[in-house]
Amino acid sequence: MTKINSFGIIGGDKRQLYCGKSAAGDGYRISIYGFEKCSETMGLHSGELSDIMDTADAFILPLPVSKDGVTLHAPLAEKTIPLEELFGGIGKRPVFCGMKSRIAYSGLQLFDYSEREEFAVANAVATSEGAVETAMLEYDGTVNGSRCLVTGYGRIGKILADMLHGLGADVTVSARSLKDLAYIRAKGFRAIETGNLQGRYDMIFNTVPCMVLDAHTLARIAADALVIDLASLPGGVGFKAAQRLSIKTVHALSLPGKVAPKTSGIIIKNAVYNIIREEHL
Amino acid sequence: MTKINSFGIIGGDKRQLYCGKSAAGDGYRISIYGFEKCSETMGLHSGELSDIMDTADAFILPLPVSKDGVTLHAPLAEKTIPLEELFGGIGKRPVFCGMKSRIAYSGLQLFDYSEREEFAVANAVATSEGAVETAMLEYDGTVNGSRCLVTGYGRIGKILADMLHGLGADVTVSARSLKDLAYIRAKGFRAIETGNLQGRYDMIFNTVPCMVLDAHTLARIAADALVIDLASLPGGVGFKAAQRLSIKTVHALSLPGKVAPKTSGIIIKNAVYNIIREEHL
Amino acid sequence: MTKINSFGIIGGDKRQLYCGKSAAGDGYRISIYGFEKCSETMGLHSGELSDIMDTADAFILPLPVSKDGVTLHAPLAEKTIPLEELFGGIGKRPVFCGMKSRIAYSGLQLFDYSEREEFAVANAVATSEGAVETAMLEYDGTVNGSRCLVTGYGRIGKILADMLHGLGADVTVSARSLKDLAYIRAKGFRAIETGNLQGRYDMIFNTVPCMVLDAHTLARIAADALVIDLASLPGGVGFKAAQRLSIKTVHALSLPGKVAPKTSGIIIKNAVYNIIREEHL
Amino acid sequence: MTKINSFGIIGGDKRQLYCGKSAAGDGYRISIYGFEKCSETMGLHSGELSDIMDTADAFILPLPVSKDGVTLHAPLAEKTIPLEELFGGIGKRPVFCGMKSRIAYSGLQLFDYSEREEFAVANAVATSEGAVETAMLEYDGTVNGSRCLVTGYGRIGKILADMLHGLGADVTVSARSLKDLAYIRAKGFRAIETGNLQGRYDMIFNTVPCMVLDAHTLARIAADALVIDLASLPGGVGFKAAQRLSIKTVHALSLPGKVAPKTSGIIIKNAVYNIIREEHL
Repeated sequence: MTKINSFGIIGGDKRQLYCGKSAAGDGYRISIYGFEKCSETMGLHSGELSDIMDTADAFILPLPVSKDGVTLHAPLAEKTIPLEELFGGIGKRPVFCGMKSRIAYSGLQLFDYSEREEFAVANAVATSEGAVETAMLEYDGTVNGSRCLVTGYGRIGKILADMLHGLGADVTVSARSLKDLAYIRAKGFRAIETGNLQGRYDMIFNTVPCMVLDAHTLARIAADALVIDLASLPGGVGFKAAQRLSIKTVHALSLPGKVAPKTSGIIIKNAVYNIIREEHL
Repeated sequence: MTKINSFGIIGGDKRQLYCGKSAAGDGYRISIYGFEKCSETMGLHSGELSDIMDTADAFILPLPVSKDGVTLHAPLAEKTIPLEELFGGIGKRPVFCGMKSRIAYSGLQLFDYSEREEFAVANAVATSEGAVETAMLEYDGTVNGSRCLVTGYGRIGKILADMLHGLGADVTVSARSLKDLAYIRAKGFRAIETGNLQGRYDMIFNTVPCMVLDAHTLARIAADALVIDLASLPGGVGFKAAQRLSIKTVHALSLPGKVAPKTSGIIIKNAVYNIIREEHL
Repeated sequence: MTKINSFGIIGGDKRQLYCGKSAAGDGYRISIYGFEKCSETMGLHSGELSDIMDTADAFILPLPVSKDGVTLHAPLAEKTIPLEELFGGIGKRPVFCGMKSRIAYSGLQLFDYSEREEFAVANAVATSEGAVETAMLEYDGTVNGSRCLVTGYGRIGKILADMLHGLGADVTVSARSLKDLAYIRAKGFRAIETGNLQGRYDMIFNTVPCMVLDAHTLARIAADALVIDLASLPGGVGFKAAQRLSIKTVHALSLPGKVAPKTSGIIIKNAVYNIIREEHL
Repeated sequence: MTKINSFGIIGGDKRQLYCGKSAAGDGYRISIYGFEKCSETMGLHSGELSDIMDTADAFILPLPVSKDGVTLHAPLAEKTIPLEELFGGIGKRPVFCGMKSRIAYSGLQLFDYSEREEFAVANAVATSEGAVETAMLEYDGTVNGSRCLVTGYGRIGKILADMLHGLGADVTVSARSLKDLAYIRAKGFRAIETGNLQGRYDMIFNTVPCMVLDAHTLARIAADALVIDLASLPGGVGFKAAQRLSIKTVHALSLPGKVAPKTSGIIIKNAVYNIIREEHL
């Protein structure tokens, strides 16, 4: 296998540009395509799709690689980019993309950076910080001194609780397992069971992807709270009930790309590098 | 002196409404005037100015109480409120306001809540959190993992450095006195002298109210940084030089009222309560 | 099954007494046996072994329950307590013990509190704090400002790194997986690979139960360091090489019982309660 | 004035040896005298007193320089060292010592490193860490999860509260001024007035040099607590009352030299260097 010296970066949003910029700084030749609507391409070389497909050693495609399974996800491109054509031209060269389960093509050397654990953790950092930013924007008080509840102690819960604590909030975290509750107490946070949410909060951050904040629970603990749901669709908050109860809610999705495209792009780059190392590409 | 059971809240912005709402929750009767342009007055009783002046036991005026020395600072009022008239009607009843040095009226029982030290500290918390929010909004990466410089270790520097550290930034703080440098090191931050700023940063927060980030310093340490100036006008950043160097700057003033009117209102209320206790009003 | 109202606490050290004292505070009747050498039994009722075996609803035995597989581990008892006899008298009543794999008796209702995950996490807190205490005692400088390396990011590594950071140390943590390295970076610590230890440290805490600090590594990173090995026997430090290199080492084992018997006793009690709840005893 | 290239280090304890070792590492020639009882002198050159007095460019004396005003404080020396004789030989060369107010000699170039603010802050770090170490040694539970009260928010209070918080304790801090109470709240600690101590604690650290923990207060808040007094003699704890109430107390004095002689020696060295720079010696 020839060593990779150049990447074609095709489709996606600002994250991909930052990914390319950072890789260029590491010495890779970068060519981009599909960013025609973007005024600022960070000094990266824009090429013709056919040229890039002819010359690049490997390709970095967006997260998700496709929304419809047929065309590349390229919101900044002027023209649609059919996957069939793209993959035909790429042949056996390595392709790095996100959420490859959304497409079904064979005969490719296709790697999914979004499936990797270190990618998920780094992304959880960006999501957590995006949640803090959302809270600061939407809440009329300070996070400092506020009573915050984080439901769930997975990747996001762990990092978000630390951040809120670091800002001087009064942090309660819910979890289901006794093990997680022990970790939560060790950190000096208040620990409660997810199945039995208690207390009164100024801000509630849900990270659990099932209905934990239903109408009854919202009425009991969230009367004056801002509720930010970080769980993927359909989320874990009874949004209609919240509206009925005049509780302010935000369903904050896909935060990393929105609030920190630069960091997100570097996270993608690092995951690609890790794949290259592990796979000896 | 009769005990204070009611406050007239006249002029100012959303902070004053939150101040009133919080005081109402403590059992005070609150009447407001000068918020006609505001759709949401938080369930507070709006009265005629003459009625309020006749009936309230004491008055809470805004921060600053006036911008021109002649009329009350009342950006949400439909009509101008002349101070002469206002103070004539109030007579000897206690008046709490901010920045009373901006006006010159005698024969009043006028207290300045904004001069108090505990007010300044609590306000520095809101300012610091506003600085974090500004950084998150303006910066394409995460605060987590970024190299942050805070110049100055006064009220805002102390609190802001803690917050950035709590979010997982790599924090450097500058100060002039050896004592402050010792405190900075004790916290585990990197310490540098304000007169000799060094390093490369992703974000720089200036809290020093004199020119510490001049053209030369910016060129040396801020080439890729976002620079947020928290110092009062004229600030401590060479804004023109920054523009010439394509360094992104934000002069972030009056953050507490903008980013956290609720907390700011409660800070005003607490300062008023502290004056009442100390002065046996 | 009848409800448990009384515990017989037999054998073990001061932890078991604190366990009993805490359970007594929750309303349980407690009788103890096997603490004759201990002057202070915290106001707990000492009984005859036969009486306790006749009357207690359930039994709490030590961690480990036995060292030889034949007699109870009872370092504070005047007489040896044979397990055969003990278990014969207890019959089908619930028995809670630690490290039950060390014994082989059938026909018992034997529960192992030390196998539980929440017990392990809480114990890791006590171990980590014991490691900090050991470092403070053995090191002539302060932890604050010192360069600390924690090898491994399991239960103890996670908690210990936080504590050292909280004391103002400059913390580096090593791990093997990219996932753990991402978590370590998210916390603001320096992250290095366990297989490739680098740097110079004042204190090194090993939590990895295999030889990570061999002669070469010690010579490279630990010349002036205090090395504290927290891994079970044989540990992960080349102790002989360290001696040859005049590197000070401490193999700190069984810290929870030594440095925090009170907390350790309460951890045992909580684990017993959790078993009772889960098993509907 | 000739540049200082060599120091005579005379009298004092292990701190002075570490001070000398660290200065030797910076390139100074060091000669020591008055450490005859100490087996390990860290490779420093021991000389005759007369030789050192003849040759050294400057002198570092201990903290305190004297306990009786007549002889040097030299607990590790075999013979008494009269100040009269010592200062006679030194003449006009710079002398750095601690607590120079304890002696009265004129015609000397005598500098007090212990009066400096950055020395006091760095020493407060060592004192705070010594307080944590003392608490860990004397308390049967963990600091993590314990309810800690720190009375006073001066140098030690500020740093100690941060350390306890960093270990996962539940921290309450008392202060007198509204300003300090605002800072305490900003950190996320519980804030109470020193004149009105409330609550129940596992550990109480007094930093206030007057009687704040009298019999009544101890009975109310310290029934099960370990009380550590960090205030200079006579301290701020009613020790007799505590004994009567069976409350365990420790009067922990002069902690830096005891728990962290290395760091303390480096703190002395840094203060000496700062004096040299400021005084252009």
